[in-house]
Amino acid sequence: MRIMGIDPGIAIVGFGFVDKQGSKQTPVQYGCIRTEAGTDPGVRLKQVYDAACQLMDKYKPEALGIEKLFFNRNVTTAFTVGQARGVLILAAVQRNIEIFEYTPLQVKQAVVGYGKAEKHQVQEMVRMLLGLKEVPKPDDVADALAVAICHAHSASWMEKSKEGSRR
Amino acid sequence: MRIMGIDPGIAIVGFGFVDKQGSKQTPVQYGCIRTEAGTDPGVRLKQVYDAACQLMDKYKPEALGIEKLFFNRNVTTAFTVGQARGVLILAAVQRNIEIFEYTPLQVKQAVVGYGKAEKHQVQEMVRMLLGLKEVPKPDDVADALAVAICHAHSASWMEKSKEGSRR
Repeated sequence: MRIMGIDPGIAIVGFGFVDKQGSKQTPVQYGCIRTEAGTDPGVRLKQVYDAACQLMDKYKPEALGIEKLFFNRNVTTAFTVGQARGVLILAAVQRNIEIFEYTPLQVKQAVVGYGKAEKHQVQEMVRMLLGLKEVPKPDDVADALAVAICHAHSASWMEKSKEGSRR
Repeated sequence: MRIMGIDPGIAIVGFGFVDKQGSKQTPVQYGCIRTEAGTDPGVRLKQVYDAACQLMDKYKPEALGIEKLFFNRNVTTAFTVGQARGVLILAAVQRNIEIFEYTPLQVKQAVVGYGKAEKHQVQEMVRMLLGLKEVPKPDDVADALAVAICHAHSASWMEKSKEGSRR
């Protein structure tokens, strides 16, 4: 199963594709979509949407993992991130990619096994779990990979519980 | 010039098309896009986007008027409205419809001539300016028409200042 993880934003959108086979996770591609400050905000939204569509069409993920809204930022940030998140979710729904939302706590729990893990611990675990030489940069990319890993774990758990109920 | 006004949301999106000829404004069509509570949030975003695309393709506005973000609501609302706003702006940018943002103050100022006008005063002025028998319901529709009227006024002003600078 191929999973796409996304860390939404308007200036920078982190993304990561991870293949999950059993309990093994392999990185397929990761990086970020960037838009330029000073460009018309509507145009930037379209750039994010177009780039996400291209990536989804190229790597054809079955599932999208994305962080649930966070309450600790300010309203303007929530609004801006919300707009970007909207077009990213639209791109996925248009392609019948199933969307799974996780809280930051769930992501940390899944990746590090500890909900209050520090950012650098999460990044280091992402590096180890995916067998990368270095922590992916910028942080948005590592965050996107973390939520993809989180969904991989969650999907394993869902499979197991399905097996269980089948017996 | 045909102007579309939008009041974004996820459960209900108010819209209104207004034709501006000189200082005269004529209502073309207005109403709202509704999505059902309980439906998958991603699917609701796609429903909003699809309906907006259909409306834009049918009525072919040159300009879109939309309210600027408001700071007085909570972060969750900002996030949800932001996501809907994102797909609406995307639909407009994809069609080369120019987007104009106005603060609630600017809308009230333009429609009533008084920035601290009450909601019912704005609605009554929308009804009068567009020569409607009744105030359009729900409020989201009247709000969408108000921002369309606001842009009509603003466009008149821009035309005048262009004429001025041409002399």
